[in-house]
Amino acid sequence: MTPVAASALPLRTRVGQVNQRLKGWEAVRWVDGAPRVTDVLRAEVDRWGGLGALYGVLRADPWSAVRWENGVPPERSAEAYAAVQEHVTRYGDGLPVLFVEEAPHGLMALGGTTLPVNLALGAGMDAALTEELGALVAAEARARGTHVALVSGLDVLRDPRWGRAEECFSEDPALAAALVGATVRGMQGTTSCDDPIDGDHVAVVAKHLAGQGAGIGGRNGSGAPIGRRELGELHLRPAFAAARAGVSGYMAAYNDVDGVPCSANEELLTGTIRESWGWRGLVMADGTAIDRLRDSAPDPASAAALALQAGVDLSLWDEAFTHLEEALDRGLVSEAVLDRAVDRVLGLKRRLGLLGEAPSAPAAHGTQDAPSRDVVALVERAARQSVVLVRDDGVLPLPGDATVAVVGPNADDLDAQLGDYTPPRPPADPGSSTVRSALAARLGAERVHHAPGSRLRGPLAEQPDEQPDGTGALDAVREACAASDVAVVVLGGTSRRSYDDEFADNGAVAGPAPDTTNGEGVDLSSVALPPAQLDVARTARASGRPVVGVVVDGRPRVLSGLLPLVDALLVVPFPGPGGGAAIADVLLTGSASGRLPATFPAADGVVPVAHDERMETARAYADNPVLRGLPLGTAHSPGITTVVRPGPATVGAAGLAEGEAAVVTVDVTNDGPTAAAVSVPLYGRRHERGVRPRRRTLLGVRRATVGPGTTTAVTFRLGLDELGSWASGTPTAVPVTVGVWCGPDTDEPAGATTVRVTDQEGATPWER
Amino acid sequence: MTPVAASALPLRTRVGQVNQRLKGWEAVRWVDGAPRVTDVLRAEVDRWGGLGALYGVLRADPWSAVRWENGVPPERSAEAYAAVQEHVTRYGDGLPVLFVEEAPHGLMALGGTTLPVNLALGAGMDAALTEELGALVAAEARARGTHVALVSGLDVLRDPRWGRAEECFSEDPALAAALVGATVRGMQGTTSCDDPIDGDHVAVVAKHLAGQGAGIGGRNGSGAPIGRRELGELHLRPAFAAARAGVSGYMAAYNDVDGVPCSANEELLTGTIRESWGWRGLVMADGTAIDRLRDSAPDPASAAALALQAGVDLSLWDEAFTHLEEALDRGLVSEAVLDRAVDRVLGLKRRLGLLGEAPSAPAAHGTQDAPSRDVVALVERAARQSVVLVRDDGVLPLPGDATVAVVGPNADDLDAQLGDYTPPRPPADPGSSTVRSALAARLGAERVHHAPGSRLRGPLAEQPDEQPDGTGALDAVREACAASDVAVVVLGGTSRRSYDDEFADNGAVAGPAPDTTNGEGVDLSSVALPPAQLDVARTARASGRPVVGVVVDGRPRVLSGLLPLVDALLVVPFPGPGGGAAIADVLLTGSASGRLPATFPAADGVVPVAHDERMETARAYADNPVLRGLPLGTAHSPGITTVVRPGPATVGAAGLAEGEAAVVTVDVTNDGPTAAAVSVPLYGRRHERGVRPRRRTLLGVRRATVGPGTTTAVTFRLGLDELGSWASGTPTAVPVTVGVWCGPDTDEPAGATTVRVTDQEGATPWER
Repeated sequence: MTPVAASALPLRTRVGQVNQRLKGWEAVRWVDGAPRVTDVLRAEVDRWGGLGALYGVLRADPWSAVRWENGVPPERSAEAYAAVQEHVTRYGDGLPVLFVEEAPHGLMALGGTTLPVNLALGAGMDAALTEELGALVAAEARARGTHVALVSGLDVLRDPRWGRAEECFSEDPALAAALVGATVRGMQGTTSCDDPIDGDHVAVVAKHLAGQGAGIGGRNGSGAPIGRRELGELHLRPAFAAARAGVSGYMAAYNDVDGVPCSANEELLTGTIRESWGWRGLVMADGTAIDRLRDSAPDPASAAALALQAGVDLSLWDEAFTHLEEALDRGLVSEAVLDRAVDRVLGLKRRLGLLGEAPSAPAAHGTQDAPSRDVVALVERAARQSVVLVRDDGVLPLPGDATVAVVGPNADDLDAQLGDYTPPRPPADPGSSTVRSALAARLGAERVHHAPGSRLRGPLAEQPDEQPDGTGALDAVREACAASDVAVVVLGGTSRRSYDDEFADNGAVAGPAPDTTNGEGVDLSSVALPPAQLDVARTARASGRPVVGVVVDGRPRVLSGLLPLVDALLVVPFPGPGGGAAIADVLLTGSASGRLPATFPAADGVVPVAHDERMETARAYADNPVLRGLPLGTAHSPGITTVVRPGPATVGAAGLAEGEAAVVTVDVTNDGPTAAAVSVPLYGRRHERGVRPRRRTLLGVRRATVGPGTTTAVTFRLGLDELGSWASGTPTAVPVTVGVWCGPDTDEPAGATTVRVTDQEGATPWER
Repeated sequence: MTPVAASALPLRTRVGQVNQRLKGWEAVRWVDGAPRVTDVLRAEVDRWGGLGALYGVLRADPWSAVRWENGVPPERSAEAYAAVQEHVTRYGDGLPVLFVEEAPHGLMALGGTTLPVNLALGAGMDAALTEELGALVAAEARARGTHVALVSGLDVLRDPRWGRAEECFSEDPALAAALVGATVRGMQGTTSCDDPIDGDHVAVVAKHLAGQGAGIGGRNGSGAPIGRRELGELHLRPAFAAARAGVSGYMAAYNDVDGVPCSANEELLTGTIRESWGWRGLVMADGTAIDRLRDSAPDPASAAALALQAGVDLSLWDEAFTHLEEALDRGLVSEAVLDRAVDRVLGLKRRLGLLGEAPSAPAAHGTQDAPSRDVVALVERAARQSVVLVRDDGVLPLPGDATVAVVGPNADDLDAQLGDYTPPRPPADPGSSTVRSALAARLGAERVHHAPGSRLRGPLAEQPDEQPDGTGALDAVREACAASDVAVVVLGGTSRRSYDDEFADNGAVAGPAPDTTNGEGVDLSSVALPPAQLDVARTARASGRPVVGVVVDGRPRVLSGLLPLVDALLVVPFPGPGGGAAIADVLLTGSASGRLPATFPAADGVVPVAHDERMETARAYADNPVLRGLPLGTAHSPGITTVVRPGPATVGAAGLAEGEAAVVTVDVTNDGPTAAAVSVPLYGRRHERGVRPRRRTLLGVRRATVGPGTTTAVTFRLGLDELGSWASGTPTAVPVTVGVWCGPDTDEPAGATTVRVTDQEGATPWER
């Protein structure tokens, strides 16, 4: 087969290449031990003379209703894909179809390794590990035959009410940028959009572009009425990092930015990312997002034309994009614009090695029954890093011979550790652990007393007040504590989906989901821990035993009710199936290396609030003087001190634009008795003439292991991304003075070291 | 004296003309029955060889510490001003000084007539009356000698947490635009910026420009990270209406817009309002706003240069603007830019008739001891219109022979009716009334039983649970209700300032103000009615008597706790000193003509929420399915029906740009037994290709009085302001289809009449 261009294809086939209507689990089914393509697939291939892309052949979750009992067995995924590919190429025009799957934190397929959610990796702040994890997921997916992975990572967590907070790496764009860049490098094995993607990697479509985290009120899909500077500084930086890593695609977000839906946003999808950034790849619409343009266009053909013209190249589940021939007939969009999109789809197939050669069946190495030892170790390390020790008043580590009450609704709930977009756990699941099971394994089951105490949601009156044996739920907590030396109270939330839930047409939860608190479609107006959960902590407190609080959740929570009830506090963004062991390890060693990846608000009514808002004159609220309960970066790490080496670091604006960087060195000292793994954030306040500075921004973060009684130097290279102006959506070098510091200050400390970006005269605007 | 230009003045004098450093009450004092200019004034006049403007000679309030006992007697204001003017012109360069006073809802001076707050006028939705009120205030102020009034009206209420919500007319830009335009016309007597301002009127500096209502979290002065379309559609429309009415000045806001402080925002202060709008006037900085540029400029001279260059012409209380000579010396700004500002200050003096003639002492007609009968009637009418009847389950009107329990913290608190920026009431205050006093006057004191029940703020435990006679506060409520036929429960908030409060350097409340809930510097994280207030309602409910709830407040409140406890509900934005009589009148007639001028949220955690947000895909919150408790426009008006006459109204885009309008007629029918005064809102949804529409917008509102059993036609002319695109900050004509309707629907009803703005081919983008 020779290289193909859009212009060589019939119009019908071209329209087929930019559509991705089907749900893959409906296109091929596992029947009697073999894959069977369905009439749905046959009809679609007949309609277009081929297929551009097929979503979700392997997807397994409550929405798809795919379970271990009825899904494609993991080790036979390649056969299922091959059956589809054979049908498409035989009955279409010979062009192979792209196999697209969800992989926001591991492949969302039966047997897919589930990683901690992005917010947990954000707590770990470890770009190198994130890259390794990406490579792991990609290898696993490609080995099964997946070509394209849909991966969260562009969204920035600006309002904790948003149910998709867990899919964000951070509230901070620099941290999100570092980790999404690492993810793309790891999954694609690339550092540029010209690099081919080899057979151990997959193409990444990063989602979502752009500003979804700025939705009003944290309401999923609500508008982001933000300006260009806010968009650039906060929301485009992760996308730019992905572009620099050579990301294959972006998924256009549901929301509008200042009134223009992202899927119809030519300024964003063509002007910024392609013309200004020079990025070459494809833009996929979010599921049914073009159909949702019905409010911005009079009919489906117009909506399709609007999206195509703006720069959407590939649709997902939409009816509207099937009206492209009509749109051409009516002159709503030109054939050249269609061909531009088709060429981008073909370009991705080429990049993956699918064109210019016979479309081969995927590598047949399949997957192993259990993840390899390396994989397990890597995922365990990520879970361990995601644990944030917020406070310890001297109760950790727990003695190795302690008897422990493990209470609270998340003490023994594996689902609540996993996050949204997660496949069902395998029937035998030896690698998983809850806090209860992990402590039982470490201490002996007889030394662990468990009671859930409450559900996750709902007022106290709705709680199960009776155990099967007739004991009240809080009585059981009381008894567990009375029988123990210490109480570990595990609270929080869950993105659990049930096979009984109702779903919207894009898989978000639409039904009641009475005990689900997180995930797509589950936004909360209150992020305070509910009274019933606090009652569990209060009951433990009343026992007189030392109390360790553990909050396992996918979003920042208001913890002001909990803090007075505990002697130590761990915060753990959904850490994945091995989270129990990770938490137990921190409880039994007393040491953790995670940091809060987002600000935990002091109260419900103060949101949105972040560590990096601009200076303002307000004195918080008359009824709530504190906004930031626990700011981004919070971690209890006694014995560790960080000092920025004094003296200004200087770089000229011209040099910065050409790739030079300012170098800042931080000395990290460990006065403790054992080696410590730490993450070292560098903060800054950027003083640009005429611009109100953000209180502080994260300039970068590095991880280091520091031996006992030693000092380690950690170096930061600050380049255009970190020091430039993002006012236009593309970093530009302007003279600035940036105060830089380590440590917990949320305001620039007096006498902070400065980084200077100078003009031709060698001055910054702060020195004129 | 001949016309003066900046270039003719010494540099020192020019700098003096653009400074307005002093607090007027410190520049002249009333001692032994006569005005005495102070050393503070002498020094300032000596420093600059004159003065550009003097703020607040008459200001009387807790911040200024001016009271009836120590302030300038109202009828002798002209003498005080004259003493200053004589000193300035004699010891300066002969140029008269501008006398500037606060007048956000009446002149903030001893004896100034206090109007209902803007939000109350917003409930009245009566542009004609608002214009008359403006003329009243202006005549009163100019008669005393005031030249320039600082008037709220540009801010749009987008978050009820903001303490300054009461200073906004509405959450809706069209309503705010209509009323601020009317205010400017009334106060200035102008319809263009070229009209002179005669001796019965004052110059208006409208505040604030721009986007202050978009501050994050409703926190006063916090950033507004909004885009150009959001700025234009929501926040610039009132400013544009003020420009069309010939407003003399704008006050630049404290906040930044997308990172650029308004006082340093050249795009806004020069590009938009002057270059695009063609407006000619002066921009004043908000108090100390240029000093607050310290974060955006390295030193005071740089801050001054930044503001001057951006388009700020006159400073207020700043130190920084006194560094302008230094700024010129250092080349930070050019002398031509200074002269531009000076010429604008001189231009305003000229417009007021102060140049080109000997600076006359103000007209000596002074003020009368009591407001005239006309004034009283006008203000009473405004208060009456501000009352919104939200619900009536058949308990109103109260029988004329009823015995009434008037309970709750706002039942007999005059201060709580007044709002912020209010002078102290006169010692004898016959025109004022509370709900208690007004009902006593109408029914007889023996038929009114009063008990406050709770304070306005704080948890229940902090409430005064003991009366002086030892009775519990709720017991007194219980007794009052038991002795009555019906209970009227008056709850809400207050912007009360105390002469013991602490203040920030701009007069905003900075101290604890333990029972103040509203006003500048008093933002609340929770806008739910506090439990202690609800307990009063609950106690009344428990009495078995019919309960009428009355909420007197300056911001939208969450009323979900109150609604189940009442049989009728009135909402009354701070109605002014005569508010008690206005409320009593509605209670005793059962009829009201106000409408909610903003959306009352269904719960605390759902803010911000408005009636006009863009379409979104979110299903509200998992824990709060309703966002809008009571949307803007809510009113209980049985017997009134409104029908838009069918058939599209069409106007071409070219014609629209040149001033044509589309005409929509609404038939208002009154099936009730008596004539009804009603406000008729016209809503629309604007369908523009590629833009996500707002759920609905207010296209306009008209008032009408409809006789019993009759139908009255009300006509709306929809022009460029209403139908154009505000994406650039200046209305432009683009083809659109707008669905229009009356009635309470918050979504476009099926089959709504349309207004069409057509292209050259006579089509809208919805018809291509």
